Amino acid sequence: MDEVRVLAPATVSNVVCGFDCLGFALERPFDKMTVRHIKEHEIRIVNLDNFDLPTDPKKNVAGVALGALLNRIDADFGFEIEINKGIRPGSGIGSSSASSCGAVVAANILLGGRFSKLELLEFAMQGEMLASGARHADNVAPCIFGGFTLVRSTEPLDVVSLDFPPLFATVIHPQIEIRTSEARSILPEHVPLKDAVQNWSNLGAFVAALGKGNYALMARSMDDLIVEPARKSLIPKFDEVKDASLAAGALGGGISGSGPSIFMLSSRIETASLVEEAMAAIYAETDVEFNTYVSQISSSGVRHG
Amino acid sequence: MDEVRVLAPATVSNVVCGFDCLGFALERPFDKMTVRHIKEHEIRIVNLDNFDLPTDPKKNVAGVALGALLNRIDADFGFEIEINKGIRPGSGIGSSSASSCGAVVAANILLGGRFSKLELLEFAMQGEMLASGARHADNVAPCIFGGFTLVRSTEPLDVVSLDFPPLFATVIHPQIEIRTSEARSILPEHVPLKDAVQNWSNLGAFVAALGKGNYALMARSMDDLIVEPARKSLIPKFDEVKDASLAAGALGGGISGSGPSIFMLSSRIETASLVEEAMAAIYAETDVEFNTYVSQISSSGVRHG
Repeated sequence: MDEVRVLAPATVSNVVCGFDCLGFALERPFDKMTVRHIKEHEIRIVNLDNFDLPTDPKKNVAGVALGALLNRIDADFGFEIEINKGIRPGSGIGSSSASSCGAVVAANILLGGRFSKLELLEFAMQGEMLASGARHADNVAPCIFGGFTLVRSTEPLDVVSLDFPPLFATVIHPQIEIRTSEARSILPEHVPLKDAVQNWSNLGAFVAALGKGNYALMARSMDDLIVEPARKSLIPKFDEVKDASLAAGALGGGISGSGPSIFMLSSRIETASLVEEAMAAIYAETDVEFNTYVSQISSSGVRHG
Repeated sequence: MDEVRVLAPATVSNVVCGFDCLGFALERPFDKMTVRHIKEHEIRIVNLDNFDLPTDPKKNVAGVALGALLNRIDADFGFEIEINKGIRPGSGIGSSSASSCGAVVAANILLGGRFSKLELLEFAMQGEMLASGARHADNVAPCIFGGFTLVRSTEPLDVVSLDFPPLFATVIHPQIEIRTSEARSILPEHVPLKDAVQNWSNLGAFVAALGKGNYALMARSMDDLIVEPARKSLIPKFDEVKDASLAAGALGGGISGSGPSIFMLSSRIETASLVEEAMAAIYAETDVEFNTYVSQISSSGVRHG
C-alpha cells in the first residue's frame, strides 16, 4: 500500500450549553485527502483546491499534524499530502481540524495502524495549535472519533464518546470573517454562578437526553446563557435564523465553533431540509453570501474515501 | 385502606460537579411514616421520635407539603401523619425532604394514586420552601423518583431520571451545625468562565459515565472547582476524610447538600465499608460526635414500609 485516500468531515464544536467541550461530526461537507509515502524524509503538501493555503508544511495545519506524527516514528521516509478541501477555511465547522485529522488518520493507515485514536488526536492538536494558538480538541475529537464527543479535559487528554440517536444537522455559513481573537475577547472572564449552574444543568440533561434518545429533552436542554448571548452579535440575523429554524421544527442549535456558521439539529432529515429553506430565506434578504449544508450526524470521523 | 406506611429515604444533593442539580437516593437511613385518613378537614402531626420537631402543620415540612396536596383536592376529610425520623435534622442528607416526600407519597397511595410524581414533587417543594426558604428540588426529586436525578429546571419543573450502574455510598455526618444561610453566603456570586467550563465538562462526563457504567470515568469526573473549595472550610477534616476515602478505594465524593455530611461513592459494597472505616478513623481523633452510613444507591425513592 503506497497511498491512502480519506474523507475528513466537518465538525461542529461548542454545541450550545457544551461550550469548550461538546462537539459532533457531520457526514458532509468534507475534505478529500490522499497521503502517500515518499522516499525523502520530509512532508510535502499539494493543494488541489483554490483556497491558496500554504504549502510550507510548518505553516499548514495538515503538515504540522503529520510532522508531529513523523517525529514520533523512526523513519527514513516521508509523506506527501494531496488536499482537496471541501470545507471552506474560516467557516467555523472545523476546516483546519479536518485537514489535521485527515492527514494523521491516513498516515496511520499507511503505517498499519500503530497509533491509537487518542495518540492521533494529540498529533492533530498540534495542527490546531497552529490554527488557533490554543491547545483545544473540540473539533479534532469528533473528527477522529466520530459522533458526539465530550472533551472532559485536554491536560491530560480525556475524550468521551457519547451515545446518540439519529440526528440531522443543518448548517448555514454566512461568508463573513470572524477573527478567533475577537470571538474570544468578547467572552466574559467571569460569569454569574447562577448562569453557570443553569448551563451545567442543561449540559447534564442534554448528555442524558442523547443517551436516552429523548428528543424533547434535547430541545429543552439546548439553551446557553453564557456564550451565545455574548457572541451572537458577531453574526448577522442570528436571532432571526434561530427563530425561523425552531419554527420549521428544529430541536435547537446555536453558533458553530466561534462562528460565523450557525447549526441546528433535527430528529428527521425532512425537518433538517425545511430548516435549510428557512435559514436560506432569511439570508436571501441580505447582501451576505452564504452556503447551507444538511447532513446526518456521522458515527464515523475520518473515513476511507 | 385507612392508613399507609412508607419509608422515606435520605438523599444526597449537590453531587460534586452537579451543584444545584444532581442528587441521588440512599436506601438508608430513612424516616418511617404513617399517613391515615381522619374525619376532620385538617392535618395532624404526631412525632414518634425525640427530635422535638414542630407539630403545628404550618411549621412542619411534612404538614406544609401535605397541606399543599390537601388544598388541591375537594375533600371533607383530613390526614394524620405519624413521623418517626431516622434521618437526623440538619445532617445535610435530605432530612426535611424525606418528611415532605414521605407525607405526600403516602397520602397519594391513600387517594388511589391520583397525582403524578411531578405533581407530588411540587407539593414536596412547598415543604422545602419552609425548610430552606428557596424553591429547590435537589433532594425531593431523588426522594420521590429514586436513583440519580438531574433537576434541569425548577421553573418550570424539569426532572431527568438518569441511568446508573450499581453504586454504594458512604456518608459521615459530623454533628456540627452549618447554617444554610452561611453555606449560601460563602459561595461566590461570580465564577471564572474557565472554572465553569471545567465544571460542566465534568458534569457532562459524569452523566455519560453513569449511563455507560464507566466507573473510571466517574472517578475522573468527580471534581468540583467552584463550590467545594468555598465550602469545605465549614467542615472539619474535610480534606483528610476525602483523601483517606480515595485511598480506601472510593471513586470520589464531596459535600452532601450544604453539609456537614460528607459522602463518597464506591463501585462495591466492600469498598464502601472500607471507606466507612477510613472516615471514622479520621473523626475518632477529633472531639466531634459523628454517625456513619453505608448504603446502596436506591433505584426507588419513598417506598412502602
